[in-house]
Amino acid sequence: MILYDVKTAPSPRRVRIFLAEKKINVEVIQVNTAEGEQLKEEFLKLNPWATVPVLELDDGTCISEAIACCRYLEEVYPNPPLMGVDPSEKAIISMWEHRMEWDGFLPVAELLRNTAERLKNRGLTGTLNFSQIPALAERGRKRIAHFHDFLDKRLAESKFVATDKYSIADITAQVSIDFAQRAGAPVQEDKKNILRWHSNVNSRESAKA
Amino acid sequence: MILYDVKTAPSPRRVRIFLAEKKINVEVIQVNTAEGEQLKEEFLKLNPWATVPVLELDDGTCISEAIACCRYLEEVYPNPPLMGVDPSEKAIISMWEHRMEWDGFLPVAELLRNTAERLKNRGLTGTLNFSQIPALAERGRKRIAHFHDFLDKRLAESKFVATDKYSIADITAQVSIDFAQRAGAPVQEDKKNILRWHSNVNSRESAKA
Repeated sequence: MILYDVKTAPSPRRVRIFLAEKKINVEVIQVNTAEGEQLKEEFLKLNPWATVPVLELDDGTCISEAIACCRYLEEVYPNPPLMGVDPSEKAIISMWEHRMEWDGFLPVAELLRNTAERLKNRGLTGTLNFSQIPALAERGRKRIAHFHDFLDKRLAESKFVATDKYSIADITAQVSIDFAQRAGAPVQEDKKNILRWHSNVNSRESAKA
Repeated sequence: MILYDVKTAPSPRRVRIFLAEKKINVEVIQVNTAEGEQLKEEFLKLNPWATVPVLELDDGTCISEAIACCRYLEEVYPNPPLMGVDPSEKAIISMWEHRMEWDGFLPVAELLRNTAERLKNRGLTGTLNFSQIPALAERGRKRIAHFHDFLDKRLAESKFVATDKYSIADITAQVSIDFAQRAGAPVQEDKKNILRWHSNVNSRESAKA
């Protein structure tokens, strides 16, 4: 297996953490997105959506989308389970993971991509160029604050995001929180439950991935 | 099981089609979102994100997020499989499903919620009110056109969206296409492959769901 990665990007980090938790070693190839390598024909053959991560399987099948890469890995390497073990738990984890993506990850992407100077006409990932929308960045910032409020309440009543065990929902939340910090929207000091949980997940070896 | 539904809304339709494909009967309760029932305390106890669908299991566990509802149903009622049967197929279907949601479903939601008069301060689902962002509606419209271009090419080479079999990726694409039509962004007549595929999926009994 080969992971096409961008070391500084949040989406592939979800897969890198997932791999680290399962102690799976794969070949890693860095894609130079700063120079637009993801938009070149060679890369588009691997992933027509021009995004990382891409997991290339040994038979040449290419899986893009972080959640799909994790699905493959979970099926082939079920231990430790990160996506649940029975139908109800699988669904609960999927629900939380999806919400962490929509309420946590997406608003940060909206904030960053609609403000960063270097992303001026790159309001979205992919093959199309879109101008930045300042109002969307502003909305993103409000949503992040609301997300932190919500997550803090959740983590007051639950050790981890989805259940009492670490799961892919924690990974997406963790990556979203760290991504928000880099985008200038860090967790505020009064969010004691997020900070306790973050210190916990951050102490795992996988957090370095 | 109880499905909390809004008959005219696209997200719960993904689950209704999924249920119909598997021939599962559940109790269905309509939520009156036009009157804000999803924002009332009683509903927020079922789903703090104030969205439909919600699938209430017999033990009282509530699953929101369409993909998570489908995950539960797939695990408990594996036949016919709609999310793949081996690791590689599961990942390929997850990849396509996720892309149909981000590139197909999300832009239509952005177009509709940022233009419809009745949704004036409801730019997003959920408990917060957001003003409409006209530039986001405009971007949504461009993205839908691009999505239709992309999907048409895909369906020139593949009978169904993800593989040669009908899957949840088709359901998300089908709902997104129908949703776009209602939002004033129908598939253009030159998109012969989408039209052929749509006529095929639309002829299934589940399309009425």
